[in-house]
Amino acid sequence: MKAVETISWDDDEVSVTLIDQTRLPEHFRLVRCRSVDRLISAIRRLEVRGAPALGVAGAYGVVLASRKIREKEHSRFMRALWVEAGRITGARPTAVNLSTGVDFVMRAVEEAHSVPAARADALHAAREFASADARACHELGSHGTSLIRGRTTVLTHCNAGALACSEWGTALGVVRSAVESGAEVQVIACETRPLLQGARLTAWELQRDGIPVTVIPDSSAAFLMRRGEIDMVIVGADRVTPDAVFNKIGTYMHAVSARYHEIPFFVAAPLSTFDPGRSTDNVTIEERDRNEVASCGGAVTVPDGVDVRNYAFDLTPHDLVTAFITDVGVMKPPVDWKQIEAARRARGM
Amino acid sequence: MKAVETISWDDDEVSVTLIDQTRLPEHFRLVRCRSVDRLISAIRRLEVRGAPALGVAGAYGVVLASRKIREKEHSRFMRALWVEAGRITGARPTAVNLSTGVDFVMRAVEEAHSVPAARADALHAAREFASADARACHELGSHGTSLIRGRTTVLTHCNAGALACSEWGTALGVVRSAVESGAEVQVIACETRPLLQGARLTAWELQRDGIPVTVIPDSSAAFLMRRGEIDMVIVGADRVTPDAVFNKIGTYMHAVSARYHEIPFFVAAPLSTFDPGRSTDNVTIEERDRNEVASCGGAVTVPDGVDVRNYAFDLTPHDLVTAFITDVGVMKPPVDWKQIEAARRARGM
Repeated sequence: MKAVETISWDDDEVSVTLIDQTRLPEHFRLVRCRSVDRLISAIRRLEVRGAPALGVAGAYGVVLASRKIREKEHSRFMRALWVEAGRITGARPTAVNLSTGVDFVMRAVEEAHSVPAARADALHAAREFASADARACHELGSHGTSLIRGRTTVLTHCNAGALACSEWGTALGVVRSAVESGAEVQVIACETRPLLQGARLTAWELQRDGIPVTVIPDSSAAFLMRRGEIDMVIVGADRVTPDAVFNKIGTYMHAVSARYHEIPFFVAAPLSTFDPGRSTDNVTIEERDRNEVASCGGAVTVPDGVDVRNYAFDLTPHDLVTAFITDVGVMKPPVDWKQIEAARRARGM
Repeated sequence: MKAVETISWDDDEVSVTLIDQTRLPEHFRLVRCRSVDRLISAIRRLEVRGAPALGVAGAYGVVLASRKIREKEHSRFMRALWVEAGRITGARPTAVNLSTGVDFVMRAVEEAHSVPAARADALHAAREFASADARACHELGSHGTSLIRGRTTVLTHCNAGALACSEWGTALGVVRSAVESGAEVQVIACETRPLLQGARLTAWELQRDGIPVTVIPDSSAAFLMRRGEIDMVIVGADRVTPDAVFNKIGTYMHAVSARYHEIPFFVAAPLSTFDPGRSTDNVTIEERDRNEVASCGGAVTVPDGVDVRNYAFDLTPHDLVTAFITDVGVMKPPVDWKQIEAARRARGM
């Protein structure tokens, strides 16, 4: 199974290249970001999305900034680079990985003593971050495989797949690893309103890999659970704090339904998504534009002048999570945060 | 408050006139059905939808059939009319009201001894059925008002409003009656995938009446409940059997979430929606076309070749219902079916 390359650095063209995820499944187009502004706009417009992929976008964003800043004097160069790093981090608030990726590269760059060295170190660190992400997904997938036996129907929400990472995926990484190890897995993909990442992206990448996938409206997941058609739920995460899992709006609803129907609810997230330093009190839940809900494919779906609430994420308390599937193993709550912090430090986070 | 007239009989034009609910909110258009085939197609395409409105459509459908059958001999006329009645009833399987409306008119027609008398009796009975539906909504609304005190945020799903009935509405009838009696009610309307009846129709008719309404993706209802922003859920029903409530897909998910958050979950349904004679074992849950989910406003949202499950309805067991709001009062489960059957008989059902 060869997964797609969602995001990459092109050194000849001095650009970050992305699959435009807003155009799938109708069009497969690459976006070439030659400026930090264009990359920020790609992040805001969700041309690139998914927590781990945002980390890689942040990392390569710093590389791009380091090439575009014309300042030759080292300390001025660094000040300008910090400003650009802050702008990139601020492009979206909820997923922790964006800042994790930016910070990882900035820490490497801080060691350098000249502008050329800083540029070289930035690229080196970003490539390391991207391959660590890919490695983490594969490790996470292997650990998750132990949870899947024989014929299994997995419900997932949004896209926590290769398109959300540098490759392989988190929730879908577990599915891919299980399929590779011989399990018969089929996926029920919730379409994921308003932007339909489940219908458009999860269905696209699983079909491409020959893994059976069926798309349903988000609101029918509980009914399928009641009918006994779902064996487990696996979702990704945008940020895991000591008190909650922040993920795509709808995740919490699935967690509540899974609990009611006594179905296991797994969160697949690499260590880079764990954030020991924050809690529900100080994570911003992004509210996005009214128009994402009020129109669809060019048609008006909400009358003009009617209010819309468009939360992009929700939060799920740990007590609704059966286990976290991470790159260092499967962990049942309560999570041992000392172990998490030690493992993160060991991986340079 | 003057509600819209969703469906009416035009005697001069010999046609059933409907608001085309597939075009709202962008376009307000009337559809004139001059043949039974056109009416059946309007029902199948959801130009008219909503359980009580389907009852009225069925009733006027028999009137239309009685005018279009050219047979002059009475018993042949009746045979042809029974065939047409069966075709209308079969247009959609899940809502009981369609057959309730057809049966109500057919019982009246059976008393007639000539074709002209049958035609006259059909129209008389259909008008009686339509006004009984409107009256039932107002009665139901008055009874429901007792449940709403002061400032209240009501979550609703799909459209159980004037557009789903001959006027006033069931779930929204309760809201309208409460507002008329001085309560400060705001409505959270779940958009209701795939066909967005909540976003398009509920928002449209509440905005028209000046009742505050906010549209959300279906998947954020549970999150708003967690945030304490929902005081109660009120939904309509397509059929209430002794073991379950059949209603728009997503209703069950809201019932599960409401239970988890200890929020009251009310089903507003007139007696005509209660069906003592069936159960979950023998009610067909309509599965509709793949394309309703796989495209939106002209855009492809699911890759070609990927499966879709598109249940139009789900079922909610009575134990998740706090109370039924009916035209004969508010009833907590377990429902007294002898009382329901007696009340139905008293109203000619």
